[in-house]
Amino acid sequence: MKTLVIVSHPELSNSPTQQFLKASATPLADVTWHHLDAAQPFAVAEEQAQLLKADRIVLEFPLYWYAAPASLHQWLADVWTDEFAVRPQQLRGKSLGLVVNFSQPEKAYQLGGAEGVSISELLAPYAALARKTGLKLLAPLTIAQFAYQTEKQRAALLVQYQQYLTVDQPQHFDAQAAWWLQQLANSTDPTLTILADTLQQRQDRLESLQQTLAELKQGD
Amino acid sequence: MKTLVIVSHPELSNSPTQQFLKASATPLADVTWHHLDAAQPFAVAEEQAQLLKADRIVLEFPLYWYAAPASLHQWLADVWTDEFAVRPQQLRGKSLGLVVNFSQPEKAYQLGGAEGVSISELLAPYAALARKTGLKLLAPLTIAQFAYQTEKQRAALLVQYQQYLTVDQPQHFDAQAAWWLQQLANSTDPTLTILADTLQQRQDRLESLQQTLAELKQGD
Repeated sequence: MKTLVIVSHPELSNSPTQQFLKASATPLADVTWHHLDAAQPFAVAEEQAQLLKADRIVLEFPLYWYAAPASLHQWLADVWTDEFAVRPQQLRGKSLGLVVNFSQPEKAYQLGGAEGVSISELLAPYAALARKTGLKLLAPLTIAQFAYQTEKQRAALLVQYQQYLTVDQPQHFDAQAAWWLQQLANSTDPTLTILADTLQQRQDRLESLQQTLAELKQGD
Repeated sequence: MKTLVIVSHPELSNSPTQQFLKASATPLADVTWHHLDAAQPFAVAEEQAQLLKADRIVLEFPLYWYAAPASLHQWLADVWTDEFAVRPQQLRGKSLGLVVNFSQPEKAYQLGGAEGVSISELLAPYAALARKTGLKLLAPLTIAQFAYQTEKQRAALLVQYQQYLTVDQPQHFDAQAAWWLQQLANSTDPTLTILADTLQQRQDRLESLQQTLAELKQGD
């Protein structure tokens, strides 16, 4: 699976979040990380060719006043023309991911929360874009208050992000487990502690299922 | 009441909608019409001073991929800093208007409609911005398919737009009627036909109310 990550951020070098995500994506073979703000004005034909080559398109940005920064809007206006993205429906069937970070805690974004609006509500334009162009929308990967995250939280984020860029259904447990088994087979990565945790979790889940099964059999 | 209209559109001279709105706003004494795309990069202190002087701030833009064009996002990021708009709450109490145009019919923007999402959902970021900064949000003035509007529809739009920029509560019938009476007193405008219609409507409504009142009295 080929993934194109479209990053909208006006000051990439001043963003620890984006630097972390970039470093996390770098070892991935089939992932292209494309920074929009450095690519303006856009070479439209080239941008469109990149989109056509990708199986997954990931839009990655911080929330500024509850929306993406200007460069993403400019890119959509310039590159996602009717002739390219709507009428021929040539993007249909690809998946669309959203990696969104913000400086408030996750729970601020809900009815009655400090922001009073949910992330899903704020990302409604991308759901509409996916529907219009035939893309399969993935649940967003949200990153709240990266600055306050512990080393362990960041290691977990690295895994979650790599899975989001490379796994067919990144929010499914079985797909995550398969990803871990592949990592184990390929490398001796510093994230082995987290891997052990996840495998343990899978083990626990399997044991719990087996116990339920045994109880059901006794009841027969 | 002083009104500041903030217009985000990359090609103003190619937009019949924006040209029409600009001409409609021109005769209004206390209205400043400010085109963002011509003002980049923004003179932040000056932009902020204009905002402080206004009683009503109107954001005016077409929907591009279900959101405002890039210049509005850039302006919000540059001008509406935390230090200016959030911490001191110095915009609190002003009103925030939204004038939004699009090329699909109004009914496309609903559950099950061609776009599948409502204008209110798409404008959620501005509701959140108003809440955060203490602005009073007005119901948006939406303009669907301006290109297909008849002369009569456009005359009605002119009136609606002028009221939106100058009337305290532009969606209240009484405020609209008061506006009309003022127009009548001041001028001999080409929109007199529409004015006559509206006064007739008010007359009909008054008659209907009087009839209801009479029936209620008989029932006593």
